[in-house]
Amino acid sequence: MDVIPAEILRIHSHLTKEIAEMSPTGDGILFKTEEYAGRLAKLKSEMERREMDTLLISEPSNICYLTGYEAYSFYVFQIMIVHRDVSEPIWIGRSMDAVSVRRMTYLSDDSIRPYTDDYVQSSEKDPVDFVVAELKEICPTLKAIGVETGSFYYTARIHNRLLESLPANRFLDAELLINWMRIRKSAAEVAILREAGQISNAIIADAVEAVQAGIRECDLTSVIYRRMIAGTPEYGGVYPSSAPYVLTGSRTGEPHAPWSDRTIDHDTPVNIETSGCRRRYHAPISRTVYLGSPPESYLRLADAVTEGIEAALEAVRPGVTCGEVAQIWGKTIARHGFHKDSRIGYSIGIGFPPTWGERTASLRESDRTMLEPGMAFHMMPGLWLDDIGIVLTQSFVVNEFGREDLTTFPRQLVIK
Amino acid sequence: MDVIPAEILRIHSHLTKEIAEMSPTGDGILFKTEEYAGRLAKLKSEMERREMDTLLISEPSNICYLTGYEAYSFYVFQIMIVHRDVSEPIWIGRSMDAVSVRRMTYLSDDSIRPYTDDYVQSSEKDPVDFVVAELKEICPTLKAIGVETGSFYYTARIHNRLLESLPANRFLDAELLINWMRIRKSAAEVAILREAGQISNAIIADAVEAVQAGIRECDLTSVIYRRMIAGTPEYGGVYPSSAPYVLTGSRTGEPHAPWSDRTIDHDTPVNIETSGCRRRYHAPISRTVYLGSPPESYLRLADAVTEGIEAALEAVRPGVTCGEVAQIWGKTIARHGFHKDSRIGYSIGIGFPPTWGERTASLRESDRTMLEPGMAFHMMPGLWLDDIGIVLTQSFVVNEFGREDLTTFPRQLVIK
Repeated sequence: MDVIPAEILRIHSHLTKEIAEMSPTGDGILFKTEEYAGRLAKLKSEMERREMDTLLISEPSNICYLTGYEAYSFYVFQIMIVHRDVSEPIWIGRSMDAVSVRRMTYLSDDSIRPYTDDYVQSSEKDPVDFVVAELKEICPTLKAIGVETGSFYYTARIHNRLLESLPANRFLDAELLINWMRIRKSAAEVAILREAGQISNAIIADAVEAVQAGIRECDLTSVIYRRMIAGTPEYGGVYPSSAPYVLTGSRTGEPHAPWSDRTIDHDTPVNIETSGCRRRYHAPISRTVYLGSPPESYLRLADAVTEGIEAALEAVRPGVTCGEVAQIWGKTIARHGFHKDSRIGYSIGIGFPPTWGERTASLRESDRTMLEPGMAFHMMPGLWLDDIGIVLTQSFVVNEFGREDLTTFPRQLVIK
Repeated sequence: MDVIPAEILRIHSHLTKEIAEMSPTGDGILFKTEEYAGRLAKLKSEMERREMDTLLISEPSNICYLTGYEAYSFYVFQIMIVHRDVSEPIWIGRSMDAVSVRRMTYLSDDSIRPYTDDYVQSSEKDPVDFVVAELKEICPTLKAIGVETGSFYYTARIHNRLLESLPANRFLDAELLINWMRIRKSAAEVAILREAGQISNAIIADAVEAVQAGIRECDLTSVIYRRMIAGTPEYGGVYPSSAPYVLTGSRTGEPHAPWSDRTIDHDTPVNIETSGCRRRYHAPISRTVYLGSPPESYLRLADAVTEGIEAALEAVRPGVTCGEVAQIWGKTIARHGFHKDSRIGYSIGIGFPPTWGERTASLRESDRTMLEPGMAFHMMPGLWLDDIGIVLTQSFVVNEFGREDLTTFPRQLVIK
């Protein structure tokens, strides 16, 4: 912690009152403490079933799920410890970020264990050694430790150092354990997803209004970003976990290329894929805007995609599997002479860079996950071909009757 | 690859002509092939010195450095193989992204080895098995394999699977090998950094104009994003590797918290940290705007930071170490009664989410890296205190005379 003269602290202490006055969705802790307590209890019970006494959580979205923590502090070493005999999760991260943990979560001070800054990207000090020391203090009976082996932020180096430092312990793979717990959203989570969906609607509306031949791709993208972050008058936005994709002309055949300075042409498709984000919850949306009169063959491509997505959405209801939904899409576009090798969607919810997908269920033919109320997906049946593409997607939550769409922008090729 | 009727391919083939007409900095391959060839030759020579015949590269910025590849395809499994006896690097990634590799890099088709979509986030198929099969085909004499153990995208799971699959091979830690090669920028890289700096100037100018009491934090942030992406009339922007930080009031004590829907108050500091980004090169900038009349004590804090950064910048020249620069900062603010525990800067250049830092040299007292022409840093001597903070930073490139600043926005607390 930096040192500051007491007089400055005094002068600015009036600012701290703001915290108490925040709206629950505008700032501060997102959900009620009971919601977090329920999630933690469920996790501990699953840990018991797996004979895992301790779990080390690296994935920022899983840390957020358990505590509400949302700060951008995962680009340096950060980990959360859940031990079955310790009531609260324990956050370990960089010292300057401890203040954010205190403000954004229900964790008590004893559960916030920051390391000093000389551990950051240092060749001399390893923050894993700090974690090991804390683990030995917090959980002297440490036996079986779960780790998220496939998390973006759990590197080979971290794992090797833990194994070396704790040779007497058993390590269990807890990869996707919490991700799978996250797949069914609570009513409070669905409410936030709806807010994200309203932002997504507004983004696409602004983009459709702004797009025209003669402006640069980056200018169109700047309009998208402006609305993504400003959100609506009711719901401000935050950065989504992935940059938007904005591709025009022949580059609509590329799903994940960055936009450029190129001027948008006449008579071209413009593919837009993005997401409103609200308190780290995402409701992605993609649309193609065709500038000019699409050739007949492109309209047939659009018809196939539209018919395919409508048929697949129609099939969504509890008890149906992800694979069955994907099959209906595949059969529908096959009637039009098309075929798509890639999955047509994935589970959505909390996301941190680099992705807003939950990395669990996919809408693909081999996926046997059965749909249940509260599951949320981005159905993303874009067709990207060698030098052309079309995107038309729908985010939804499964409910007891079928589904609730998170965005309401019309599902069709936009022609302008 | 998706299948598309030939007639559509024909109709849209006129779009491919755009590619040939792109400006070198607007799209297509960023640098001359010779520049990439020089980097690869240097890497292979370092591999030889380390007795490493093969290197697996996971860090997207290192892949970009060697080939110019910039697409957002690293959120699923992606790796690049460099083998000393194979002329080109080999890209392995998702099939739908192969088209972007073809368009953005000099790699020939044989060096682009995509895996099918059923490997993506699947519990049945592991893309590491695909890599192992390719490795055996490409490099039958495979002996010592370097891996980037600390890369965000090289998870424990990937490493374990490789070790299991290649038990006869020796694995060497190549962590930061390419990152350290990147630390000295070429003239062509410095030119792109300057463009990023011009965008950074424009962002701060827009933010200073827009910020005022009564608007929401998210509305201010939307102005920042708009300029970040639109860039300047000459240079369009792309997404930086990290979201901006926009914090007001008591939350200026938090370095990495997200902005919110809160309305900005009167008589408050507003901390802005962000970066223009051009073709993945970053020139970050941070400023505090104080709305109203700062109390005397806050002005003294600002004076200390201003004097500290000026003194530290003055010390920058070839032959001085990072540690010496940091010491000058520390001594200067100590005269004002302040102390800062955290590093005051880091090496910058190519970045991909989640960070624009290169993870090599830090401006901290213990760092003995000697400054050399071409090295670029973000000097970031913010002071974040428990409930207040100030940020005032400078990105620069070391040159033979001292340094060249990448941004020109005045280095002072902005009072509005």
